[in-house]
Amino acid sequence: MIYRLGYAQLNVSDLEKSLHFYEKVIGYIKTKQEGNKAYLRAAEEFDEYSLILNEDKDNVALDHFGLRVSSEVALDDIKKKNEALGVEVEEVQDKDHGRVLKVATPSGHPVAFYHHSPQLNVYHGENKDVILPMRRTHLQNGIPPLRIDHMNLRVPSVNTEWNYWKNFDFSISEYVESADGNDKYAAWIRREPFTHDIALVHKQVASLHHIAYIVDGVAGVIKTADVLADAGYRDNIEYGPGRHGVTNAFFLYIKDPDGHRIEIYSGDYKRDLDQEPIGWTQEAYEKNGRLWWGAEVPESFKETTTINKNWMKEKIY
Amino acid sequence: MIYRLGYAQLNVSDLEKSLHFYEKVIGYIKTKQEGNKAYLRAAEEFDEYSLILNEDKDNVALDHFGLRVSSEVALDDIKKKNEALGVEVEEVQDKDHGRVLKVATPSGHPVAFYHHSPQLNVYHGENKDVILPMRRTHLQNGIPPLRIDHMNLRVPSVNTEWNYWKNFDFSISEYVESADGNDKYAAWIRREPFTHDIALVHKQVASLHHIAYIVDGVAGVIKTADVLADAGYRDNIEYGPGRHGVTNAFFLYIKDPDGHRIEIYSGDYKRDLDQEPIGWTQEAYEKNGRLWWGAEVPESFKETTTINKNWMKEKIY
Amino acid sequence: MIYRLGYAQLNVSDLEKSLHFYEKVIGYIKTKQEGNKAYLRAAEEFDEYSLILNEDKDNVALDHFGLRVSSEVALDDIKKKNEALGVEVEEVQDKDHGRVLKVATPSGHPVAFYHHSPQLNVYHGENKDVILPMRRTHLQNGIPPLRIDHMNLRVPSVNTEWNYWKNFDFSISEYVESADGNDKYAAWIRREPFTHDIALVHKQVASLHHIAYIVDGVAGVIKTADVLADAGYRDNIEYGPGRHGVTNAFFLYIKDPDGHRIEIYSGDYKRDLDQEPIGWTQEAYEKNGRLWWGAEVPESFKETTTINKNWMKEKIY
Amino acid sequence: MIYRLGYAQLNVSDLEKSLHFYEKVIGYIKTKQEGNKAYLRAAEEFDEYSLILNEDKDNVALDHFGLRVSSEVALDDIKKKNEALGVEVEEVQDKDHGRVLKVATPSGHPVAFYHHSPQLNVYHGENKDVILPMRRTHLQNGIPPLRIDHMNLRVPSVNTEWNYWKNFDFSISEYVESADGNDKYAAWIRREPFTHDIALVHKQVASLHHIAYIVDGVAGVIKTADVLADAGYRDNIEYGPGRHGVTNAFFLYIKDPDGHRIEIYSGDYKRDLDQEPIGWTQEAYEKNGRLWWGAEVPESFKETTTINKNWMKEKIY
Repeated sequence: MIYRLGYAQLNVSDLEKSLHFYEKVIGYIKTKQEGNKAYLRAAEEFDEYSLILNEDKDNVALDHFGLRVSSEVALDDIKKKNEALGVEVEEVQDKDHGRVLKVATPSGHPVAFYHHSPQLNVYHGENKDVILPMRRTHLQNGIPPLRIDHMNLRVPSVNTEWNYWKNFDFSISEYVESADGNDKYAAWIRREPFTHDIALVHKQVASLHHIAYIVDGVAGVIKTADVLADAGYRDNIEYGPGRHGVTNAFFLYIKDPDGHRIEIYSGDYKRDLDQEPIGWTQEAYEKNGRLWWGAEVPESFKETTTINKNWMKEKIY
Repeated sequence: MIYRLGYAQLNVSDLEKSLHFYEKVIGYIKTKQEGNKAYLRAAEEFDEYSLILNEDKDNVALDHFGLRVSSEVALDDIKKKNEALGVEVEEVQDKDHGRVLKVATPSGHPVAFYHHSPQLNVYHGENKDVILPMRRTHLQNGIPPLRIDHMNLRVPSVNTEWNYWKNFDFSISEYVESADGNDKYAAWIRREPFTHDIALVHKQVASLHHIAYIVDGVAGVIKTADVLADAGYRDNIEYGPGRHGVTNAFFLYIKDPDGHRIEIYSGDYKRDLDQEPIGWTQEAYEKNGRLWWGAEVPESFKETTTINKNWMKEKIY
Repeated sequence: MIYRLGYAQLNVSDLEKSLHFYEKVIGYIKTKQEGNKAYLRAAEEFDEYSLILNEDKDNVALDHFGLRVSSEVALDDIKKKNEALGVEVEEVQDKDHGRVLKVATPSGHPVAFYHHSPQLNVYHGENKDVILPMRRTHLQNGIPPLRIDHMNLRVPSVNTEWNYWKNFDFSISEYVESADGNDKYAAWIRREPFTHDIALVHKQVASLHHIAYIVDGVAGVIKTADVLADAGYRDNIEYGPGRHGVTNAFFLYIKDPDGHRIEIYSGDYKRDLDQEPIGWTQEAYEKNGRLWWGAEVPESFKETTTINKNWMKEKIY
Repeated sequence: MIYRLGYAQLNVSDLEKSLHFYEKVIGYIKTKQEGNKAYLRAAEEFDEYSLILNEDKDNVALDHFGLRVSSEVALDDIKKKNEALGVEVEEVQDKDHGRVLKVATPSGHPVAFYHHSPQLNVYHGENKDVILPMRRTHLQNGIPPLRIDHMNLRVPSVNTEWNYWKNFDFSISEYVESADGNDKYAAWIRREPFTHDIALVHKQVASLHHIAYIVDGVAGVIKTADVLADAGYRDNIEYGPGRHGVTNAFFLYIKDPDGHRIEIYSGDYKRDLDQEPIGWTQEAYEKNGRLWWGAEVPESFKETTTINKNWMKEKIY
């Protein structure tokens, strides 16, 4: 069983510049830095990291993202299901995650399935006092982000990609019909009882639109814009704040120094996985779905981040 | 598979008085009222209700609570598991939920397992415009509460009760060791990846300590106290605001006109079901667990709500 | 001595429609309704009203605004100063304010100076219990707005208008130089130690740009957009949220059913009246002053509300 | 004319320890440190400082507080008024404030009247870009506090002290009658149109109860408790959060390493200086005034900080 989105690895052109943005200004917490990679977590996460920044200036891209599964047995099951679907699975060992299954989805998105995830220690000092990860507010700076929430991926065919993911017990929370009715324009799919772990949206070229992090309420979203503008990153605030009709997200889209887009938002809503998907016609989507209220979507919003095309056969670290 | 806590039914002595408290002041939304019962939901819920107030002045108590399961097949499975455990299951039909399995847990807590749950319509008007349930803020009053979160139950033996619930794939997020090490003092157990759907805490007499609802951040918690005091219900604010060490809950405990306790809180944290439970010694719990900061626990906090002892064999509606 | 902006009277085309917008959706509290006029207050005000809606469909305009002065003696002083400046003063009696001095400023803005202002009763019940006006949260709906803050006026010459107001001990907090250096482009002027009671901005035709109300923090500003969109007033959200560099205002501009613009904002900053004005060059204003961050100013933002040209000689009620 | 409370100087036993508390944990911004003194400001202040920490381990006390007046001429006026009242005035020069009038009030409270107050520069860089003091959020830590608000002083006779301050155009916003009706139990007095710059409360020995700082809304108050507990200062959280009936303050009282009490609160309300004071009988105060809602006042709340008895004749720096 897949639990959830665990982490994403972004290839960046200049690690120092990226760390200034993510760590010093936004307030991600750096757990470790090894070679070209920095490992960052958000303030309420128990995992050691949910974002890996990998300096690789010739391949600025979404390197891959990781989905955490419930057990080693679940990994076996995922391997079998992929093979039954005719999807190639590469099994490797990763220092942090142990056994990892590498897969490229039908659209080519680079995915790592893993079970083991290094955890923060919660027992501190001689007396093994319990200190939860989020109880370090006196050391925080920036916003900070609280936890990773979802990836928004662009895919040439939403139905094709959905036909892959539904094998792994994903559920659609909301979707937008395509104009001709032969495909979907978009689908928000999830393993957790919120609106999405992954959004699939139509675009000819498979790519990453954004990674989303939850912050503390609408005030956390506004603080993001304030902190960025105050730190000299005003041009990195791309779009928002506003509210989407679909998923009810109160959003702000920002761009990192390489143009990777992060959605900063205050959470969506809770709804059981078995409930009927909520469907928007193209018309309804244009009217209220894309935007419940807010400024018009800027042209730049169509830009996306390249995905790693060498994911399979590539060494994972 | 059990999804989550679905609803609770409280028996109250005076429905009108209770509705004034819950609906007019706190801001619960009444979906329907039939006979002695009023059905209330919180603002972000898709279920028609999560709280039933049932006027029954001779049996002021927790009537029962409902756990929503993933399918009819899952109900079969739950029935079998109970029978294998030697726990009596009574199968009834409920107008709203269809097939319902009634069970009294080892400590006697009255539970209804059900799959079908009436849902709010999200398509509105001639054009079937999508309007999500929470997008009615112009009609809201009071706080309002956003969604039900958990029940806190008192049980004579935490281990005995846990030995029941673990058969249904519950996981412990945090627990407190008992002084003598033979039982637990408390365990927070969950089917969702947060800290708890149900809290089990030691008390000689099985009873209900509180039902918890999530509100919009710490400001929502403070607004609760303000709204209650302003409306003449200051004495119904029992304890808080403060922060628990266990579960990281920022809490306010209030009491309804019958003394049923509601916890108003701003949410806890997210952590996968398979992760090792976080254990507190009695000493650590006394030091930082019960209270991360805040005023001392008042004496009244030991009081609990009686549970319905006639749950089995009783008509469900 | 002038204390502050006390109230504004807007002429509206349809009182019922306006009341739906201001009272039912935004959450203004109606104190009284007499003839064509409704008197509204914000939640933390002690004055009976700060906004008068006057149905006069042939003269949809800013009827006038009122400035509260410290005493009857202060009214004498203001009369003398106006006369010394050659500005006509008309002295009338108003049922609510008693003695009122009517003046049209050099640019023609319709002002009422008054001392007496009807106050809400704070002693309630038999025991004369003190209940402050803002302690009625259980009866509130909408956002609600907390208090009136300022008027933003358009004037053909900022310096000419400033030369009038400086006689009444106004102080400039911030200003923008004009391109040619002969006038100012804008000046924020105040009698209270915040950034402005009145903003003066250049436009050929004297008119009203907006009236501003303070809400509870950035969350209150966002709630405004949510409530409006949810109630079917999405098109009345004109611009924002965003932050101005000048005055540090976190803003949202909305339009009422007649197109009168209200700024909903979370407050500015405190600074003594004697401190040196903060000056922005045109260049600095274009770069960071108009907008610290946020979407581009929409074209519609140049539209303004007509001002009452018959203020002098007109009956006040 | 007195404008407002400008700053307070606290004598502390260990400057390093105090700076850890105020600067590293709470988030005050240190402007300068000279000899035994550290000068701190809150995030939205234009003054270089509002809090001076002076290491003087033998005289841990409120050294004095400063009231800013509108001009040098206003200082002359204050000098004359004091002399007319038979109150000794000592005129000194202070490096930061220039001419300073030192006075001990009838109860012995040590006050400095001054006009000049060093201001933060708002023009930055080659282009003299305007950057307002609060637009440094990327460099903030802790809560942070936004601005100084008031002092709460204990005095043997409220009426005697009030009879002094009313000569300087202070106004009472709210007061509590004494039991016997011969004095007042407390009076909140102000020069700014909020509830108080100074609170006068009866106690046999003249002393300081607390200095209050405003933070960003109720969330800022709660963040204070979180940050303190997380940083190991849980025992420094003395009382709250709760809401006073008098002044409508949502409060949290904390104690610094020397036991000096700071009130962290989210602001009160605005009301003109000429309005009739709001009076509470002892009975009403006990019922709703001291506490609108919240936990009982702890015994420790009666403790106060000694005031400097050598203020007059002492060197100011």
